Amino acid sequence: MVRSPQDRSEAAGAGEILPPGAMNGAESLLHTLVASGVEVCFANPGTSEMSFVNALDRVDGMRAVLCLFEGVATGAADGYARMAGKPAATLLHLGPGLANGLANLHNARKVPISVVNIIGNHASTHQRFDAPLTSDVAAFAHTVSHWVASSAGPRTVAADAARAVQAARTAPGQIASLILAADAAWLPAERPSPALPVIGPAPVSDLAIAQSARALRAGKPVAFLLRGEALRGRGLQAAGRIAAATGARLVCDTFTPRIERGAGRVPVERLPYRPGPAIAFLQGTATLILVGTQAPVGFFAYPDQPSELTPPGCEPLVLAHPHEDATAALEALADALGAKAPPSLSPFRLPDMPADGALTDEAVMRLVGRYLPDNAIVSDESITAGFPHYPLLETAAPHDCLQLAGGAIGDGMPVATGAAVACPDRKVVSLQADGSAMYTLQALWTQARERLDVTTVIYANRAYKVLLDELRFVGADRAGSNAFPMLDLHDPVLDWVKLAEGMGVEAVRVDDTRGLDAALKSAMGQRGPRLIEALV
Amino acid sequence: MVRSPQDRSEAAGAGEILPPGAMNGAESLLHTLVASGVEVCFANPGTSEMSFVNALDRVDGMRAVLCLFEGVATGAADGYARMAGKPAATLLHLGPGLANGLANLHNARKVPISVVNIIGNHASTHQRFDAPLTSDVAAFAHTVSHWVASSAGPRTVAADAARAVQAARTAPGQIASLILAADAAWLPAERPSPALPVIGPAPVSDLAIAQSARALRAGKPVAFLLRGEALRGRGLQAAGRIAAATGARLVCDTFTPRIERGAGRVPVERLPYRPGPAIAFLQGTATLILVGTQAPVGFFAYPDQPSELTPPGCEPLVLAHPHEDATAALEALADALGAKAPPSLSPFRLPDMPADGALTDEAVMRLVGRYLPDNAIVSDESITAGFPHYPLLETAAPHDCLQLAGGAIGDGMPVATGAAVACPDRKVVSLQADGSAMYTLQALWTQARERLDVTTVIYANRAYKVLLDELRFVGADRAGSNAFPMLDLHDPVLDWVKLAEGMGVEAVRVDDTRGLDAALKSAMGQRGPRLIEALV
Repeated sequence: MVRSPQDRSEAAGAGEILPPGAMNGAESLLHTLVASGVEVCFANPGTSEMSFVNALDRVDGMRAVLCLFEGVATGAADGYARMAGKPAATLLHLGPGLANGLANLHNARKVPISVVNIIGNHASTHQRFDAPLTSDVAAFAHTVSHWVASSAGPRTVAADAARAVQAARTAPGQIASLILAADAAWLPAERPSPALPVIGPAPVSDLAIAQSARALRAGKPVAFLLRGEALRGRGLQAAGRIAAATGARLVCDTFTPRIERGAGRVPVERLPYRPGPAIAFLQGTATLILVGTQAPVGFFAYPDQPSELTPPGCEPLVLAHPHEDATAALEALADALGAKAPPSLSPFRLPDMPADGALTDEAVMRLVGRYLPDNAIVSDESITAGFPHYPLLETAAPHDCLQLAGGAIGDGMPVATGAAVACPDRKVVSLQADGSAMYTLQALWTQARERLDVTTVIYANRAYKVLLDELRFVGADRAGSNAFPMLDLHDPVLDWVKLAEGMGVEAVRVDDTRGLDAALKSAMGQRGPRLIEALV
Repeated sequence: MVRSPQDRSEAAGAGEILPPGAMNGAESLLHTLVASGVEVCFANPGTSEMSFVNALDRVDGMRAVLCLFEGVATGAADGYARMAGKPAATLLHLGPGLANGLANLHNARKVPISVVNIIGNHASTHQRFDAPLTSDVAAFAHTVSHWVASSAGPRTVAADAARAVQAARTAPGQIASLILAADAAWLPAERPSPALPVIGPAPVSDLAIAQSARALRAGKPVAFLLRGEALRGRGLQAAGRIAAATGARLVCDTFTPRIERGAGRVPVERLPYRPGPAIAFLQGTATLILVGTQAPVGFFAYPDQPSELTPPGCEPLVLAHPHEDATAALEALADALGAKAPPSLSPFRLPDMPADGALTDEAVMRLVGRYLPDNAIVSDESITAGFPHYPLLETAAPHDCLQLAGGAIGDGMPVATGAAVACPDRKVVSLQADGSAMYTLQALWTQARERLDVTTVIYANRAYKVLLDELRFVGADRAGSNAFPMLDLHDPVLDWVKLAEGMGVEAVRVDDTRGLDAALKSAMGQRGPRLIEALV
């Protein structure tokens, strides 16, 4: 028998000695998640998740954030974890609900970052029937997950949840997916599980440090390719000291999940996007020291162009694999080199005011740079519009920049959403291309719902501009009458002011520099969600 | 070497004797699809699909329809195939692009219906690198596909495409996914392949017909549970003759992919949604003859309720499996029974005019029924709002009704889009719940882009109303302060007029019967996309 909620509602504190069956699986799961440090759940529940939703009323400590599409939930979990340093949960509805969240889980996997997915499934007794929503949930989960488990029943839910969180928090961060059958959630369960130990980054061997030190002492050109912890805080400081002492270049991947930038921060060069320019950029480098990343490869392959972007004569050398302690490794390397002098830092110098007149991509970034508040978070999915003007923010106010790690567009607005939940005291600036923004525009509703302090700037160029460029690489001089409509978004025009207002976000359209100047001034001077459609 | 488009552009007719390498893989693929009867492609391409897009300019016969989210593309392919009786292609961008389309492919799989997915992948030489968009594309595809293949290179693309279409068109319809590496698309390819034979429905054995005839002659209560071809045209006529001659009940699944309804059509009862009412509905039935479907099971399981909905004493009997020829089987059965008298048909009787005043769910359906044009297509994803009032359309003008087959919400507006592409001369009425409409609202843009004759009616109840009901089934009297926000969409309110206008669709909001009456009159009196937000 299922006990009524009244029977168990008072007894459900995690620390008490409970009678057996005093809580159901969903309650046991929620207590376990909270005890394991998971405090936020980005949710899009359905019928099979109703026990979980019901348990939210009886278990303290979990903030549930409703998302109107699952891709928003998974992208928000990614953004949350990048900024909070610990995972959020998602709550997803069976195979198809998970399916809608897979693209942003792909991105999260490529960060890599910690996410705990709770995926409802039919009751165990119901799974053998071909009901409409029956699917192979585990098969969906395996496409993007490092760790997948299906709770065999309510007795193991708490233990499984603790293991899921441990898997997610294993350095450098993993996607853990726990499939929760509806009856495992509604039946009487065991006590909650305490948190399991977090499996942090592994130490880097002395040999790896000695190898890098030798390369740096050899007097030949060295570049560091940095990702993860190495791009902020003590790790970045240590890298900066090494660069100051040795002349080594500091470089980050073309798209980097999180980097501390702006005035007072150690400047890091960005690897170019196209294979030719990327190889030219690294030309002459004798050793490319890899810290938390791999040797660079092309985003895509092209006819007659190489996939590997390390130029001839450049030797990759791993200082720290992604699961290793990059911060400690860089500090040890700096010590080994006697690199004690402080790094050179980016000065504070606002971008010049753009000329009056029609907006350009560059003018947008200049004005964003001029208004960027101290300690802001920039979620950058501006694709072709923002990419060339990325250097403009290097001397703006110090900020964290979050980029699309896995190439699956539709991640920027959800990441901004999750980052804002993680850091309620910081302004989030979400730089968005209009094409990519359409994939997960439902994020705006959650921003309004939760009163998140996110200002979204839409670069409205009304095209899949990157693809207009790409078409040249497969031999087309230009798009013809059938191809062009696949790349152009002018018919009909997307009205981002109406789309935002339709989801409760205050919005304005601007088409000249004065208009954007005023709109940014207004948005940065207040709290809460805003959208600025910048016609470029 | 890749040949320039100029070299090969003139020579690319499918019927000519071409020199080897006269076309690339993408052109060979496109010619093959067109030759196999695939004339529409719902596309959301990326870089790896640029050769396909480029080929659209050099191969005639393929209509490419741009969708701004992949779930729109896959749902539209489903709707197109339900109405056109043949598959459309989708064009999707690598694993994550496919991922965004999986939920509606799940739905299409449950119809089941023919879909040909063309999924771009990295060039074969590039796949071993961990580029941002690298993923196991086949693993994503297998979750929803009956048939999956990866073209080994340009030489096999045409043959693979012909096999993909054959797999998709194998009765009763399958999901076929062809993974196309970028280099297989851009390199010189073989000639196009001619169409392969369509593997149509299998004949039903004489034994199966004799068994059903015996059950019908036994004098005990018999009900037919019908799906697929049996719910329209000659199949439904034959079922109606059998019912008239024997008193057997004609029933369809709770959610049926396509059914001919309205005045002059054979009336079919709809199986109730909840297990208790469904079992009560079938109580007393001695034999349940299955035509193109399975014995009914619950949409979800609930504590202490059965999954199987066939009541005790009711014996399921298969007349035609889904891959068998239900139309011929029903006609043979009618002949065997000597059921020559014409079936009784639904009369033409418009729903009564609702009372003046605030809109109710029922009033919406009454007015829709009053304005429904002859031969309209109704895409019904109205969930809790429309469900109880489904009988009101039984005596409205004759129409096809398309419902959510796989339970993954977010299919109604894409299905409406595809149906409108398939049937440009028929009005499509898309009945949408506001919660489910948010999953794939980007469909509205494609409706505007293609000037599709779709009128969308949003039941704006501003809640996941079905879940407010479902919560009771897991023991909660009501949603508390944490659970309620997971089910309520009032904060902020979704403004569907702005959302529609933001995507180029003319829209109006109504909150009383007179307003809806005027809005429907206007929408039905013109062609092109419209949206009516009905506050209920």
